[in-house]
Amino acid sequence: MSKLLIVGTVAFDAIETPFGKTDKILGGAATYISLSASQFGVESGIVSVVGGDFPKEYFKKLNAKNINTDGIEVVEDGKTFFWKGKYHNDLNSRDTLITDLNVLADFNPIVPKKFSQPEFLMLGNLHPAVQMAVINQIPVRPKLVVLDTMNFWMDNTWNQLMEVIAKIDVITINDEEARQLSGEYSLVKAAQKIYKMGPKYVVIKKGEHGALLFHEDNVFFAPALPLEEVFDPTGAGDTFAGGFIGHMAKTEDISFENMKRGVIAGSNLASFCVEKFGTERMENLTHNEIQERLLQFKLLTQFDIELG
Amino acid sequence: MSKLLIVGTVAFDAIETPFGKTDKILGGAATYISLSASQFGVESGIVSVVGGDFPKEYFKKLNAKNINTDGIEVVEDGKTFFWKGKYHNDLNSRDTLITDLNVLADFNPIVPKKFSQPEFLMLGNLHPAVQMAVINQIPVRPKLVVLDTMNFWMDNTWNQLMEVIAKIDVITINDEEARQLSGEYSLVKAAQKIYKMGPKYVVIKKGEHGALLFHEDNVFFAPALPLEEVFDPTGAGDTFAGGFIGHMAKTEDISFENMKRGVIAGSNLASFCVEKFGTERMENLTHNEIQERLLQFKLLTQFDIELG
Repeated sequence: MSKLLIVGTVAFDAIETPFGKTDKILGGAATYISLSASQFGVESGIVSVVGGDFPKEYFKKLNAKNINTDGIEVVEDGKTFFWKGKYHNDLNSRDTLITDLNVLADFNPIVPKKFSQPEFLMLGNLHPAVQMAVINQIPVRPKLVVLDTMNFWMDNTWNQLMEVIAKIDVITINDEEARQLSGEYSLVKAAQKIYKMGPKYVVIKKGEHGALLFHEDNVFFAPALPLEEVFDPTGAGDTFAGGFIGHMAKTEDISFENMKRGVIAGSNLASFCVEKFGTERMENLTHNEIQERLLQFKLLTQFDIELG
Repeated sequence: MSKLLIVGTVAFDAIETPFGKTDKILGGAATYISLSASQFGVESGIVSVVGGDFPKEYFKKLNAKNINTDGIEVVEDGKTFFWKGKYHNDLNSRDTLITDLNVLADFNPIVPKKFSQPEFLMLGNLHPAVQMAVINQIPVRPKLVVLDTMNFWMDNTWNQLMEVIAKIDVITINDEEARQLSGEYSLVKAAQKIYKMGPKYVVIKKGEHGALLFHEDNVFFAPALPLEEVFDPTGAGDTFAGGFIGHMAKTEDISFENMKRGVIAGSNLASFCVEKFGTERMENLTHNEIQERLLQFKLLTQFDIELG
């Protein structure tokens, strides 16, 4: 039985940044989420779909990290979802050059029996109908359900998105998406409106400007670690989400105090992800490196208060 | 004798935001810096220039906060520096509609004798030749010299800016200015290059995204407090600088550890400044309000670390 279930894309990415370019490499939201969460030693499984062109060695990479891939359907005569993008010089914006949905277009997720009672559920960025179909296959409500989504689904599948958002505990979106979802410019007001849609916790990702965690009247801020070089931002948001849910699943404590540590863990993992192309850095990351950088986050943010 | 000397503009501002507009009201870098620093109960004096049109009641406003205005030259037949600007809907950008330098155009700063041995010196955003003229009138080097500047001086007075930057301890600039000054996109690399120009400490202001304090290989991050409403961002950067130097002057401790508290103090004060038009909020701010918000900054940033 898998403690953490992750639903999301498993894909080929082709990436161009000012520092170089790749051919088709391993990508996808569920890939980054699972690699990040695997750093916490939690048993996880992925529900996704790939084509017959998906290399067996990629499954092995994931399995080597204790990520169960039995829930990744292989459509032998289909092709794997493919995304190609090019980042601008500042790495803050990018152009999508190719989006070939391929087998993802008809994806009908099947949660394997052994995954059907996860304690933690991460719904990666996907069509909200797919996210909902997964929720509907899980009879006992997990301890924590986290959903990631994006502006595309707000533009095109609003009603279905509202249905699934009503069922979750934590939503992770970026600042522009929070503004679009809520119709509020102030992120404080945006969070308050989003609570009313369902989630009790709202995580707003601001990329190099960090992330905000809102719950009731409380707010916590996890900075991004200032880096000398950012090489490739692909997957940073998913890696952040994977670090968050991985920390939560490991500690099994869903208090707000522990969620603070969760978003710091997410920021920490994301700071590694961007140091190399694609998943490279995440595949070779060690526990010690993560712990050392956690100390850097402490030095970056902690101060003695003087209340007089 | 004044412990904190502040050089900068004292001005009329006319401001338009999505929430309203003002006629000519009290503005200027030295005004915001001194009002902010005054919250720390430090004796301060301003060196600046105004015209005969500058209302006596504005001097009284400043004097009531223990800000000495004897160093503000009044050119009776001249007009006070006037800035008019209009903010865009997101408040993150603005158009300057009018910049009438007036008496500022020929400003030749005279530091009154009683101000000539300050322990702390704040060089507000002004022509670098004016900033340098003030430094040259101070025979004993202050404990800490902080300089604020902007892209305009980088574009137009590069050599003079380099001369004054070589003489200071702390520079405060925004992220785009740090990139322009250093030629580096990464703020970590930018800070390293700026050290070589003179300052041992680099403070990079990112507006609603907070501020970074760099020193040697250390970095500290002070977030901006997430606010329900930002009413008018005018003066926020100067208020931040005033909170920083005010904290430093009060505590007389120029260690990096204490500078961390300084940038938190600056963020704290700036979070009030933007809540009303112009200087209004800063004029009525109480010690208790500041202390309460300091606690909010603690809740916003502090977490228990688990190092395993």
